Amino acid sequence: MSTHVVVLAAGQGKRMFSDLPKVAHPVAGRPMVGWVLDTVEPLKPVSTVVVVGHGADHVLQILPEGAVSALQTEQLGTGHATSVGLAAIEDIADDDVVVVLYGDTPLLTTGLVERLASLEPSEVGRLVTTTLEDPTGYGRILRADNGDVVGVVEEGDCTDEQRKIGEVNAGFYAIRARPLLTALAGLTADNAQGEYYLTDVVGILSAGGDKLVAVNASPEEVSGINSQDQLADARKVIQRRVNQRLLESGVSMLDPDRTYIDDTVEVAPGVVIYPGVHLEGSTRIGAGSRIGPDVYAKDTVVGEGNIIWYAVMRSAVIEDGCEVGPYASLRPGTVLKTGSKVGTFVETKNAVLGEGAKASHQAYLGDVTIGARTNIGAGAITVNYDGTSKNRTEIGEDTFIGSDSMLVAPLTIGDRAYTGAGSVITEDVPDDALAIERSEQKLIPDYSERRRARKARLDAED
Amino acid sequence: MSTHVVVLAAGQGKRMFSDLPKVAHPVAGRPMVGWVLDTVEPLKPVSTVVVVGHGADHVLQILPEGAVSALQTEQLGTGHATSVGLAAIEDIADDDVVVVLYGDTPLLTTGLVERLASLEPSEVGRLVTTTLEDPTGYGRILRADNGDVVGVVEEGDCTDEQRKIGEVNAGFYAIRARPLLTALAGLTADNAQGEYYLTDVVGILSAGGDKLVAVNASPEEVSGINSQDQLADARKVIQRRVNQRLLESGVSMLDPDRTYIDDTVEVAPGVVIYPGVHLEGSTRIGAGSRIGPDVYAKDTVVGEGNIIWYAVMRSAVIEDGCEVGPYASLRPGTVLKTGSKVGTFVETKNAVLGEGAKASHQAYLGDVTIGARTNIGAGAITVNYDGTSKNRTEIGEDTFIGSDSMLVAPLTIGDRAYTGAGSVITEDVPDDALAIERSEQKLIPDYSERRRARKARLDAED
Amino acid sequence: MSTHVVVLAAGQGKRMFSDLPKVAHPVAGRPMVGWVLDTVEPLKPVSTVVVVGHGADHVLQILPEGAVSALQTEQLGTGHATSVGLAAIEDIADDDVVVVLYGDTPLLTTGLVERLASLEPSEVGRLVTTTLEDPTGYGRILRADNGDVVGVVEEGDCTDEQRKIGEVNAGFYAIRARPLLTALAGLTADNAQGEYYLTDVVGILSAGGDKLVAVNASPEEVSGINSQDQLADARKVIQRRVNQRLLESGVSMLDPDRTYIDDTVEVAPGVVIYPGVHLEGSTRIGAGSRIGPDVYAKDTVVGEGNIIWYAVMRSAVIEDGCEVGPYASLRPGTVLKTGSKVGTFVETKNAVLGEGAKASHQAYLGDVTIGARTNIGAGAITVNYDGTSKNRTEIGEDTFIGSDSMLVAPLTIGDRAYTGAGSVITEDVPDDALAIERSEQKLIPDYSERRRARKARLDAED
Repeated sequence: MSTHVVVLAAGQGKRMFSDLPKVAHPVAGRPMVGWVLDTVEPLKPVSTVVVVGHGADHVLQILPEGAVSALQTEQLGTGHATSVGLAAIEDIADDDVVVVLYGDTPLLTTGLVERLASLEPSEVGRLVTTTLEDPTGYGRILRADNGDVVGVVEEGDCTDEQRKIGEVNAGFYAIRARPLLTALAGLTADNAQGEYYLTDVVGILSAGGDKLVAVNASPEEVSGINSQDQLADARKVIQRRVNQRLLESGVSMLDPDRTYIDDTVEVAPGVVIYPGVHLEGSTRIGAGSRIGPDVYAKDTVVGEGNIIWYAVMRSAVIEDGCEVGPYASLRPGTVLKTGSKVGTFVETKNAVLGEGAKASHQAYLGDVTIGARTNIGAGAITVNYDGTSKNRTEIGEDTFIGSDSMLVAPLTIGDRAYTGAGSVITEDVPDDALAIERSEQKLIPDYSERRRARKARLDAED
Repeated sequence: MSTHVVVLAAGQGKRMFSDLPKVAHPVAGRPMVGWVLDTVEPLKPVSTVVVVGHGADHVLQILPEGAVSALQTEQLGTGHATSVGLAAIEDIADDDVVVVLYGDTPLLTTGLVERLASLEPSEVGRLVTTTLEDPTGYGRILRADNGDVVGVVEEGDCTDEQRKIGEVNAGFYAIRARPLLTALAGLTADNAQGEYYLTDVVGILSAGGDKLVAVNASPEEVSGINSQDQLADARKVIQRRVNQRLLESGVSMLDPDRTYIDDTVEVAPGVVIYPGVHLEGSTRIGAGSRIGPDVYAKDTVVGEGNIIWYAVMRSAVIEDGCEVGPYASLRPGTVLKTGSKVGTFVETKNAVLGEGAKASHQAYLGDVTIGARTNIGAGAITVNYDGTSKNRTEIGEDTFIGSDSMLVAPLTIGDRAYTGAGSVITEDVPDDALAIERSEQKLIPDYSERRRARKARLDAED
Repeated sequence: MSTHVVVLAAGQGKRMFSDLPKVAHPVAGRPMVGWVLDTVEPLKPVSTVVVVGHGADHVLQILPEGAVSALQTEQLGTGHATSVGLAAIEDIADDDVVVVLYGDTPLLTTGLVERLASLEPSEVGRLVTTTLEDPTGYGRILRADNGDVVGVVEEGDCTDEQRKIGEVNAGFYAIRARPLLTALAGLTADNAQGEYYLTDVVGILSAGGDKLVAVNASPEEVSGINSQDQLADARKVIQRRVNQRLLESGVSMLDPDRTYIDDTVEVAPGVVIYPGVHLEGSTRIGAGSRIGPDVYAKDTVVGEGNIIWYAVMRSAVIEDGCEVGPYASLRPGTVLKTGSKVGTFVETKNAVLGEGAKASHQAYLGDVTIGARTNIGAGAITVNYDGTSKNRTEIGEDTFIGSDSMLVAPLTIGDRAYTGAGSVITEDVPDDALAIERSEQKLIPDYSERRRARKARLDAED
């Protein structure tokens, strides 16, 4: 018996008020539909088809590599979408199990999908139910005295007694291929919306004497996301799951409720994370590093024993034992080699700092390679842009760049060289040399007295 | 039948440990008493009087325009305060309903006030009750077997049996004018505090055969704020209400529990807000803008499609498609025209950036107008203050201000002009010209060797 | 009857994945074991011994001054550790009460320890119990019909019926010295781990007819911290306790759940704290100061009426009425005298700002003394490091340091002096003088046209 999965992900999600297709909304670094696909992976289904519609181009881009998709060109309802999905499955046996899920239920768990899909040989199918305090609008589950599910009755068809039933159809199914296909073929669009509803399959199967077995789930697990407040709630639940996994693996967080880590991020045991930290994308943090407060890191690799706080880092690489911040911005192409430092109000871009190199204060380092142990003075700037093109600066080892030095690229400065404070360096500096660009300091004595006098004169003229 | 509202807001709130009068404490951008006044507006009362006392000058300033106030010059209790309020109502009929509320209950809802004020023709008045786990200290509600309220008994007068009653008098009333005035006239100050208690009105009315109808409310809704921990709790509840309203309207928040938005702020559907964002005062955010993490904005207008993160903005205007941050400070008078950028470690004040103008790094831009597409180099500074007065800088379009250029105001720089890196510009620069202030770069070869030698010599002398 | 306390703090805490010994992990500014020691202080025990083992060197350093410790050189179980602790108590009477606690239960309260230690004359000892939903793994409490504790039965020895008992032994004891010593002497290591278990003392005493009296506690209070997720939970509980104490004392917090204050910090009533604030170590904040959003302060003294936001401060002193931030870093040795200001993108270190002195923008002030009312221009830098040593700058009163002035230390600038924008100042400046280092500004007309032409030529050559 093989399992096939159809994930319905064609909806627009108007109530999201967003240009993103609904199932593409990110939750802890994965699109909603990605979370759903993750839950089915352990079942090793022979095929998994994602039915796309609204925003199909966008959704196709975010699907995992190798995912099969089927395009529902018209929005004709969940029954129709399921048929579209099934049509994309090449090899399916009558007894195979088709699991139908939704792309907007990121809180789904593998445990529930496994319970849903584990049909006994005698069973035609299963459906997921959940029990709501206010079941208004949902199809109620009718059970016989022995607990068997004997039907699902829609809101509109409920007797007053049935309307009080709290157990409802969550809409997730696992049904054998043959009866499912037959039932789908029997659907009609005789309803207000003119759509083919997957839920009607239950009635068709029932009418044919085929009962579905109910699998009860918590409302949280099966809740679909249709609005920004539901999305915010789901994010909170999933972020808690991600953080709990990291805490149990030995990551220390001062306040897990204020720690935002994508599920795609790797954090080593022994890392200490302060509040207000965002780790996104392919970021990795090595053992013994201390991150935060208030750090944003995207696609950034951080080695061991670093201290990083109040910093923004994008596509940067930080080796071991470095210091970053407070108040630093590392832009793409930044590489901090072991023991180097990017301090306060320093920005880097396409910048390699050699081992033990330091830029402690207010420097702008763009398109530059800096040798080991070189010190960059406060306020030094690589003048990498001349208004037309970007140029590189090369700085050697054990060199001392004076405060407020302007390094006008293209420029090469040697090893053990010096630049004077406030100098504009436009010519290359050889090894061991001091380069300086400066006039003589002049003194105008009693200037404050003259200023006062001038001001008094000007005021008098007014 | 007309409705009049008296809001008692004269208390000092000693336990707040604050110079602010208690009812003036802000909650999500409105003073407490403002939230109370908001709840009564939908009832369209013919008069609303706020009774002020402690800190009256301050409270009067924060009342909405047109609000009527009455000054309670002596603190003689809630009954006296109510009389003071009623005296300020010019036209009142015997059958009119007087609603008495408090300025320190910001969690009050319009729903409750409506229930309170909706007297049946047969009713003399209503009072709000709530049920507490620990009712100690509150007047207990006595009910007949049929549920009718037959009295309120104060803690001190309770039998042991009555002391177990959890339903208590919340102190909010809606009573017809004539019986209320009569009862108030009958109050005495025969108690430990020597005050006239509004609550005694219930007993006086009861004694005259006039029963009040109870309206039950949740303890949260009627809780008065008397301490900083109660204020913090109230802020949490109200911030959740404000954020829930925004989420439902289509605003996306990654973590609503760390998003601080005044009720006075407008955020368009489709805006994405990261954690650690504070939006205050008259701030407005346009569609498609992404705000945060860690942004503070007060009285700032943000257009559409902007990306703003790690920034502080006060009384600024940002048009569309701009980038701000990470780490930027926009002070009052900043205008960013469409497509302009204020980047990392840049501060602006009274600064207009033209369309597509960019100041990407470490610039200070004060009292300046910058033309379209002009690029401000890293570390450039408008030297707007000479120790005596502030002066303006005018910069044209398509101009290139070199890194670390000091623009000594007053100064005018033309279109398509250039300034050299590290130059101090004191004279105007015409269109198309390059202005440069720089000496010649000198090289001192083998400087590092000489330094070493000198240091060795100095060390030897020690 | 005297009380002695033995705190077992020898464990390693492998599941913490940390180099820190388990009991040394900080919670709101105190190590876990410090919180436990705090709870016993009000009992005024005649002796308190901390039994240390793993990481003993580190743990000894963090114990409060005067604390007695005993080294358990081999990890032979809690019974052995208790014996080691008792051996360090010099004077102990047979009837004295020995309280045995653990170094990894920071949520313990004084109330519980008092209840535990308050033995009636007739009692041999007491033990703490707690009731768990899932008691698996814990020793169950057996009670007679009258409620008397008649034994503790370990998981492995439980009947099916006993296994359902939810009340378990929390492991905390208060036992008279003589019976405790006798029972400890009778312990054996006949178990899988080959350790001496303190819990076996209960059985030995029972066998001798000595029943212990149970003191029931909440699971939270007695929970030991064995993993990072438990540590995170404990931090949340304790931070809430600390913040609640501050709120009740009159400190205003906009969001106590995002306010991180060490228990060692003092905050005056009337202080207003915004979210994202971390106050650590010996930090003190004076009345009327506004702190945050997003401030980190360690060992920093802040006076009254200051406004500090978006700032990092370490070992700094701020007098009254100062402004700091947004985006400022105050490093050790910073002193801001009354009414001074450190503004945006300014960093200070070993820097004294006189009364009313201002550094509003992008300055680096290291190793400097600044006189009263002196103004430091944007981008000014004290060039305090020459690549070999750090040197000081002295600046007088009412002086005006021009924008981007480089003050090359050692350097003295007098009172009422001026430095020109962009000047590198290497020589001392006397009182009232203007010091300037600058070339003449040159203009190259029609530069933009020439650039265009040159670029066209170069492009043509390519």
